[in-house]
Amino acid sequence: MPEVRVYTTTQCPYCRMVKAFLERRKIPFTEINVSKDTKAAAEMIEISGQNGVPVTVAGDRIIVGFDAQALNEVFGAETAIDTYDVVILGAGPAGLAAAVYTARKLLKTLVITENIGGQALESWAIENYMGYRMITGEDLMQKFEEQVKELHIQVELDGVTGVSRDGSSFTVKTATDRSFGAKSLIVATGKHPKMLGIEGEDRFIGRGLSICATCDGPLFRGKNVAVVGGGNSALQTAIEMSKIAKTVHLIVRSQVRCDEILKEIYEKKENILTHANVEVSRLYGDQFLTGMGIRHRDTGEEAKLDVDGVFLEIGWLPNTEFLAGFLPLNPAGEVVIDENCHTSVPGVFAAGDVTSVKGKQIIIAAGEGAKAALEVYEYLVKSGQG
Amino acid sequence: MPEVRVYTTTQCPYCRMVKAFLERRKIPFTEINVSKDTKAAAEMIEISGQNGVPVTVAGDRIIVGFDAQALNEVFGAETAIDTYDVVILGAGPAGLAAAVYTARKLLKTLVITENIGGQALESWAIENYMGYRMITGEDLMQKFEEQVKELHIQVELDGVTGVSRDGSSFTVKTATDRSFGAKSLIVATGKHPKMLGIEGEDRFIGRGLSICATCDGPLFRGKNVAVVGGGNSALQTAIEMSKIAKTVHLIVRSQVRCDEILKEIYEKKENILTHANVEVSRLYGDQFLTGMGIRHRDTGEEAKLDVDGVFLEIGWLPNTEFLAGFLPLNPAGEVVIDENCHTSVPGVFAAGDVTSVKGKQIIIAAGEGAKAALEVYEYLVKSGQG
Repeated sequence: MPEVRVYTTTQCPYCRMVKAFLERRKIPFTEINVSKDTKAAAEMIEISGQNGVPVTVAGDRIIVGFDAQALNEVFGAETAIDTYDVVILGAGPAGLAAAVYTARKLLKTLVITENIGGQALESWAIENYMGYRMITGEDLMQKFEEQVKELHIQVELDGVTGVSRDGSSFTVKTATDRSFGAKSLIVATGKHPKMLGIEGEDRFIGRGLSICATCDGPLFRGKNVAVVGGGNSALQTAIEMSKIAKTVHLIVRSQVRCDEILKEIYEKKENILTHANVEVSRLYGDQFLTGMGIRHRDTGEEAKLDVDGVFLEIGWLPNTEFLAGFLPLNPAGEVVIDENCHTSVPGVFAAGDVTSVKGKQIIIAAGEGAKAALEVYEYLVKSGQG
Repeated sequence: MPEVRVYTTTQCPYCRMVKAFLERRKIPFTEINVSKDTKAAAEMIEISGQNGVPVTVAGDRIIVGFDAQALNEVFGAETAIDTYDVVILGAGPAGLAAAVYTARKLLKTLVITENIGGQALESWAIENYMGYRMITGEDLMQKFEEQVKELHIQVELDGVTGVSRDGSSFTVKTATDRSFGAKSLIVATGKHPKMLGIEGEDRFIGRGLSICATCDGPLFRGKNVAVVGGGNSALQTAIEMSKIAKTVHLIVRSQVRCDEILKEIYEKKENILTHANVEVSRLYGDQFLTGMGIRHRDTGEEAKLDVDGVFLEIGWLPNTEFLAGFLPLNPAGEVVIDENCHTSVPGVFAAGDVTSVKGKQIIIAAGEGAKAALEVYEYLVKSGQG
């Protein structure tokens, strides 16, 4: 095994996932925190050709982000094929809450997930999680994770690629080509950020275009950046970036629409410049992003903003691609559930942001996860499998 | 106003409610904590003729428990008639979470409730509220309450006696004969404990028979007690009482059925004696309870247990009497909702233990409250009232 280096920032949750992955496999590595070390940051950018963390270097292999498949390729996958009382897909607030509840019922529980914490990790400051006046998503998810760890619940860091059913049992296939058997399932795979759908977007991801401001924000200290979006997440990102960056352009398709409390803070920030009724028309740059074009939606007028970083906060899509044909989805692609987290397939339950529940909030997802777990328990007892 | 005295125990949430009630009306009072003061406890029992807290003494009026109606009669009710964007009925985990969410949307919010914290107050040790490894119901509800207070949400300590609808607006009537107008409602009134339905029950409440072990438990130090029930709540109460009382008889109708984790702790407690397949047939005692009769459900064999305290943990009934004819209820008397907390009446939402959601858990109720609040906001915006 060649020498392994991991470039990180202090707050980046995906960096923590990479480190946990390596530690579990007992692979020695050197961590290089680039949050305040501009020399190391420059080195990382030179090696990886991009400026997003984490970056894992193993000999001539360079892995950008927490890419379970690539990591398994380079460092070897674990093998474990077994049947569980319940397999929980995803480990955001819903999946973690579900796991705590099924484990307390002593059900043999497996969690399959690409990361621990889900989208909640990317929240800067949560003021509406009941029980905490103020907490970061990262801290809250660490508390959830501790509860899961205390119960010794098996967690596999992997992506789910397919689910099938044979009578009353289920098989889950993963990105690293493993299979797991299950008597019941809880789908809690959450959602992923929407992209702009414009030319060059893929090329600039990690080279100035970011979908995780919590991760990549510190790399843009003193620079000009843009945040695209007009909802709560966009406003919160703009407020946080206004403390780090020189100027923050807020790019809003129509008007800002967020919690009034957030709006009051935002309105006091003098280095946030709001561009309403505009859309992103272009991304400028060679190796790295250097600017963005915006177009007024009424007048068609175009303008160029010189920015080094663009953070997307324009909404989400449910992670349900692998469920097509297996479970009924609504037009938004979400898993349709009733008030007790039942899908239309017996033994399959769903919870959190991936479902037809409209409120996408940590406290809601956590409650739904607990609910789904209690229903799984009842399902197993009633079907004589508990 | 005559001199006012309030007899309390340290952990008793209803005691806190009485004190808050008096403080809000700026009524001076003396608090007498009887937790460890046996002389004061004896004095309280002599005055009130019962041994439950709180007891409020004002001249010749003696008020047992947190009785909003009696307190309003003696100390005067507040008057306030007004129309709110949303009136939230109840302030358990669901109602408090809903209030935080509607207040953050700057909706004019009123909470009407008989107490703050609801049934959650009576939980000894909560290990499955996500974000806390272990917390008491009392402490967790204080945290919820702080979040509500920080947002300056109006809370009326009163009981709801009726709800009516006129077009798209609602009127809520209370036990102290007040009316409040509302553009929308969130029903989060929770549930109340089931009683045994046997002779003498009413007479012994506060005289040895208790439905709040968290409140009255400390009064039975070194004595013999019984806990009736076989689920999680009963087991948790039995475990906690085993640390306080000499012997705890656990009276179970069929078999113990609880979280395995709880079962493991319970099985190690040598001073818990379990009586399975029995029901309570009688309560013995003159002024105070001195014993209980149990009957084996198969053999009909009867036995008498000498106990000073009996704690009921045999389940719950939803607080929906005042909703008859206004909202469709299921056979269990719960408000029927969909996965987004909608009832069948536009503008009326419901959340928490009062609903058809089967999982009765704090984290679930909190999530449902947040969900209902977001739906209220959308309802008001869409109906042009927001």
